[in-house]
Amino acid sequence: MVQDTLVDRLIGAIESKGTPVCVGLDPVWERIPEHIKQEAEGDVEEAISLFNMQIIDAVSILVPTAKLQIAFYEAYGLPGIRAFERTKAHAREQGLIVITDAKRNDIGSTAKAYAQGHLGNDRGALFDTDFLTVNPYLGSDGITPFADACLKNDRGIFVLVKTSNKSSGELQDRLVKLNGEEQSQLERLGVEVKDGHAPLYQLTALNIVRPHTLGSRGNRGYSPIGAVVGATYPEQAQVLRKIMSHSILLAPGYGTQGGSGKDVVPCFNDDGLGAVVNSSSGITYAYEKANDPRNFAKYSKEATQAAIKDIDGALRTARKIR
Amino acid sequence: MVQDTLVDRLIGAIESKGTPVCVGLDPVWERIPEHIKQEAEGDVEEAISLFNMQIIDAVSILVPTAKLQIAFYEAYGLPGIRAFERTKAHAREQGLIVITDAKRNDIGSTAKAYAQGHLGNDRGALFDTDFLTVNPYLGSDGITPFADACLKNDRGIFVLVKTSNKSSGELQDRLVKLNGEEQSQLERLGVEVKDGHAPLYQLTALNIVRPHTLGSRGNRGYSPIGAVVGATYPEQAQVLRKIMSHSILLAPGYGTQGGSGKDVVPCFNDDGLGAVVNSSSGITYAYEKANDPRNFAKYSKEATQAAIKDIDGALRTARKIR
Repeated sequence: MVQDTLVDRLIGAIESKGTPVCVGLDPVWERIPEHIKQEAEGDVEEAISLFNMQIIDAVSILVPTAKLQIAFYEAYGLPGIRAFERTKAHAREQGLIVITDAKRNDIGSTAKAYAQGHLGNDRGALFDTDFLTVNPYLGSDGITPFADACLKNDRGIFVLVKTSNKSSGELQDRLVKLNGEEQSQLERLGVEVKDGHAPLYQLTALNIVRPHTLGSRGNRGYSPIGAVVGATYPEQAQVLRKIMSHSILLAPGYGTQGGSGKDVVPCFNDDGLGAVVNSSSGITYAYEKANDPRNFAKYSKEATQAAIKDIDGALRTARKIR
Repeated sequence: MVQDTLVDRLIGAIESKGTPVCVGLDPVWERIPEHIKQEAEGDVEEAISLFNMQIIDAVSILVPTAKLQIAFYEAYGLPGIRAFERTKAHAREQGLIVITDAKRNDIGSTAKAYAQGHLGNDRGALFDTDFLTVNPYLGSDGITPFADACLKNDRGIFVLVKTSNKSSGELQDRLVKLNGEEQSQLERLGVEVKDGHAPLYQLTALNIVRPHTLGSRGNRGYSPIGAVVGATYPEQAQVLRKIMSHSILLAPGYGTQGGSGKDVVPCFNDDGLGAVVNSSSGITYAYEKANDPRNFAKYSKEATQAAIKDIDGALRTARKIR
C-alpha cells in the first residue's frame, strides 16, 4: 500500500464528515454584514477575511472542502488577493481541503507557470491550493502541464466538461462528428451514440480528461484529474459519470442556480462516492432570507446542514449508500 | 463624430507607430540577466520590474501595445503580482496600450467580478487593464458580462477562437453539425460549408463573438470585442477574418511558436489594419542568441525592429497597405 494521495484524503474526508458538500466562499462587499465592516474599520482585506473565517469556523466541522472563487478576490485588487490568502490558510488550518475555482487555461510554458503558482511545490505560495479548476478549450496542451504538476506535487484539478450555466450548451452541447474509434469507445463505455455524432462535452470527457485518469490513481481508485459537471444537468452527468469513472466530479450549481439534491445524484458512483457538491451563496448569504446579518455564521451553518441532509436523503433514495 | 474609443486609439496607435506588433512581457526568473538580479539585490518584484521596464523603455517608441501574460506573474506570488502592477503602470506611462493575457472565464456574477477587477471603472485597480483575453467554453453567459464592461468602461476583450498551439484542434477543429440558419449565415459571409458541418472555432466566431461586434463600434469601424487567432493557422485565420470582419484579431504564436510574417497576413483586413501580432520570448529573450545579457534591452529593440520589418514586408507583398 503506497502513501495516501490528496484524492485519497479527499475521499477519506468525505467519509469521515459523512457528506460531499463543499462550501463556496465568494465574497461580495455589498453582502458582507455591516458589523463585520465596522469591526474591520472599513478595511476590505480585513472585512472579507473576518467574514470568511467566521463562516469557516461554523462549517469546518461539517464539510470536507471549501471552494474559493478567485474572481471575487481579484475584483478587490491587492486587499482581495490578501484576503484570498488568509481565507485559504484559515480553511486549511481548520482541516478543509481547498479548491481554487480559477478556471485557468493556457499552453506550454504558460500553463506550467500557472501550475507553478497554483499547484507548485511551495505550500506557502500565495496562490498555492489543493485543487484547481481548469478550462479545456485549448486541448490537451492546456491540460497536460497541470496534470503533470498534480502527479509531481500531489495536487488535483477539475477540468470544465459540462458547466452549470444556461448557455453552456452553445459550444458544449454541439453535436460533433465522431471517428470510428471514438464511437466504439463511447459505446464500450455504455454511452448511446446517435448517427455517428456526440455532444462536444462527451469528447472533452473522452479525449481530454479520461486519458489522464487511466494512469496514476490513488489507493481509493480515483484520479487527481477530476471534472466539473453542473448540478443543473443531471442527464448529462449520468453519461459523464460513465465516461470518467475514475474522476471525482465537482458539481456547482446546487442551490441558487437551481440544482437540487436529486439532480446531483447522477454525479455519484454507486458507492455514494466520486463527487463533491458545491454551494456558495446559498450558504454564505443564508442570513439574508432571515434578515439577520448579526448571526450570519449561524445561518450559514444551518444552510450547510440543510444541504447535507438534502443530498444525503437523495443519495439514500437512489440507494447510492456510502 | 463621437469621442474616440479605446479601439479607435488602438487603431490610431498602430497607424502612428506604423506597425501592429505587440511586445509580450512574460518574465521567467531563470532568464532574467544576472546583473539585473544583483541590482535588485535578489528581490523578485524588483528584478522582474527592472527587466520589464528596461525592455519597455527600449521598445515603447516602436510599438503600440504590450501584452502581459499574467500566468508568469501569478507564478511568483505576491512579488509577481506587484511586478505585474508596476510593469503595467510603466507601459501605460510610456504610452502603450496594455493587453492582459489572462484567459479569464466564468458566468453571471462571477464573470462580473472578473470584469470589475480587470475591466472596471477604477484605473488605479491592481488588475485594471485595457484589453483582456477571455475563454469562450462556457458560451455567451461567459462573454456578455465582459462585453458589457467593455462598453460601459471603454475597454476591450479578445475572445479565444482558434489558438496557436498544436492541440488546439482537439476541440476547436471538431466538425459540428450546423442548423440551417448557421449554414446560410456562413455562406453569406463567404465561408465554404461542407456537408452541413463546420469546425467548432467557426461557431465560436459566428455565435459567440460576431453578435457582440454588430452593435457598438468605434469611429474606425472596429468593435471592442476582438478575437484570438493563432499566427500558426493562416488558413483558419482567412476564414475567421470573414466571419468577424469588425473584430481586431490578436495573433499570438509569431516567432518562437513558428508563425512568420507571411502567416499573419490573413489576420489583416485589406486596408492593412484589424490585427495585432504578439511576440513575447522572441523579443524579451533575444539577448540569449547573442549570449550578451548585459545588453538585453538593445537585443529586444533589434528583435522588435526585425519583427516590424518582417510583418510590414509581408503585408506589402500581399498588397495590404495601410
